[in-house]
Amino acid sequence: MRSGRFVAAGRVRRGNFDEDTAYSKGRSWPVEEVRLLPPVRPRNIVCLGRNYAEHARELGHTIPERPLLFLKPPSSVVGPGDPIVLPPSPRVDYEGELAVVIGRRCRNVSPRRAEDVILGYTCLNDVTDRDAQGWEQNWVRAKGFDTSCPLGPWVVSPDELEFPLVVETRLNGELRQRGDTRLLLLGIPETIAEISSFMALDRGDVIATGTPSGVGPLRAGDTVQVSIDGIGCLANPVRASSR
Amino acid sequence: MRSGRFVAAGRVRRGNFDEDTAYSKGRSWPVEEVRLLPPVRPRNIVCLGRNYAEHARELGHTIPERPLLFLKPPSSVVGPGDPIVLPPSPRVDYEGELAVVIGRRCRNVSPRRAEDVILGYTCLNDVTDRDAQGWEQNWVRAKGFDTSCPLGPWVVSPDELEFPLVVETRLNGELRQRGDTRLLLLGIPETIAEISSFMALDRGDVIATGTPSGVGPLRAGDTVQVSIDGIGCLANPVRASSR
Repeated sequence: MRSGRFVAAGRVRRGNFDEDTAYSKGRSWPVEEVRLLPPVRPRNIVCLGRNYAEHARELGHTIPERPLLFLKPPSSVVGPGDPIVLPPSPRVDYEGELAVVIGRRCRNVSPRRAEDVILGYTCLNDVTDRDAQGWEQNWVRAKGFDTSCPLGPWVVSPDELEFPLVVETRLNGELRQRGDTRLLLLGIPETIAEISSFMALDRGDVIATGTPSGVGPLRAGDTVQVSIDGIGCLANPVRASSR
Repeated sequence: MRSGRFVAAGRVRRGNFDEDTAYSKGRSWPVEEVRLLPPVRPRNIVCLGRNYAEHARELGHTIPERPLLFLKPPSSVVGPGDPIVLPPSPRVDYEGELAVVIGRRCRNVSPRRAEDVILGYTCLNDVTDRDAQGWEQNWVRAKGFDTSCPLGPWVVSPDELEFPLVVETRLNGELRQRGDTRLLLLGIPETIAEISSFMALDRGDVIATGTPSGVGPLRAGDTVQVSIDGIGCLANPVRASSR
């Protein structure tokens, strides 16, 4: 099942998708005629840093002893096709990632039971102000600015996917990042266990599993695509700050 | 005006308060007979670190060159009287603070216009796992665990308050922290300007203005109170982790 949110006939709707069609409450529209929105409206967005060894190395970092977590604020989320508006910074990078969407309220989930709380998977771009990341204690300006969390195009349920999942990021059509879930230092069940050990997760919350190597800068006019086999492609244009 | 949320006659209600009475949609209840809830349900909770010089010094830190920000997740919020459940950590501290509640969606607010976007003020306890804060890059476990953000008892509109506001924290009745808004390194209008320069704030979002000196550890069985003249008192009991 592919579920998400979209605008059709002037209204925001929740519904499901197949290859060509968006469905909501007994009505349907061709997918090309609807505007896709972020597929969920998470309250908590919890992200893993340095969860691919190659990416930790490319930034000159060691692999953390305990999983490195950070938050993105709910206000940072945008949907497929929405512009990434660059903050005034010398370097803002794309970071393509697989996102796990939580299906129900949970706390203290064991790795063995983690699949019970997963609604599905989608694509996420953890857009990062690399300059701010260098001087901030907590990465709020670095990873929390408006439009820094493109999410979508829809949530695909686990039964439709074959693991390992391959995440690819393309900049203006050119392949820049490629990783797969076998390379995650902390696996998905262990990640859900770690996070839910200290905070409750709820339906629609999002966990970003970290980015593979190959991160690089965005410039106004670029288009960045994060795609995952069996899920689809999240594409966003890049715009300069209006300030 | 004092606005908030409460449970009366078995239902969650939004409403207003005077000294003795809670009002909602033409009905009223004695305040002692309702259960107060967190007065708002913020999506973004943005906090200032080291915003009182004395507190920065007591932790052995310098004063940051640019305001130190961090996020607390929405899931961390609890209301007046709710227990603070200690995570398994050698040291978890209270941090009493003045919280600003945002009244409407805004972005790029100048300090001069900041008062236009303020709904009011309330008390917040930025409960902190001091041990995790020592080893975490981003303070997610340190400041984001469930129950780490007591908030309330209600939101008081600016016209009912006289500045400077005095924030006091009491542990088991004993005064431990006392600060006032004249001591804030970054003032409230400048804080709203800084945060809204990179992220949109929305109605119900919360900004925590930082804690004065005098932080200290909580133990199971304690009661911690954050009080602000003209607002009221946010009291929470402390419980051991059930793990």
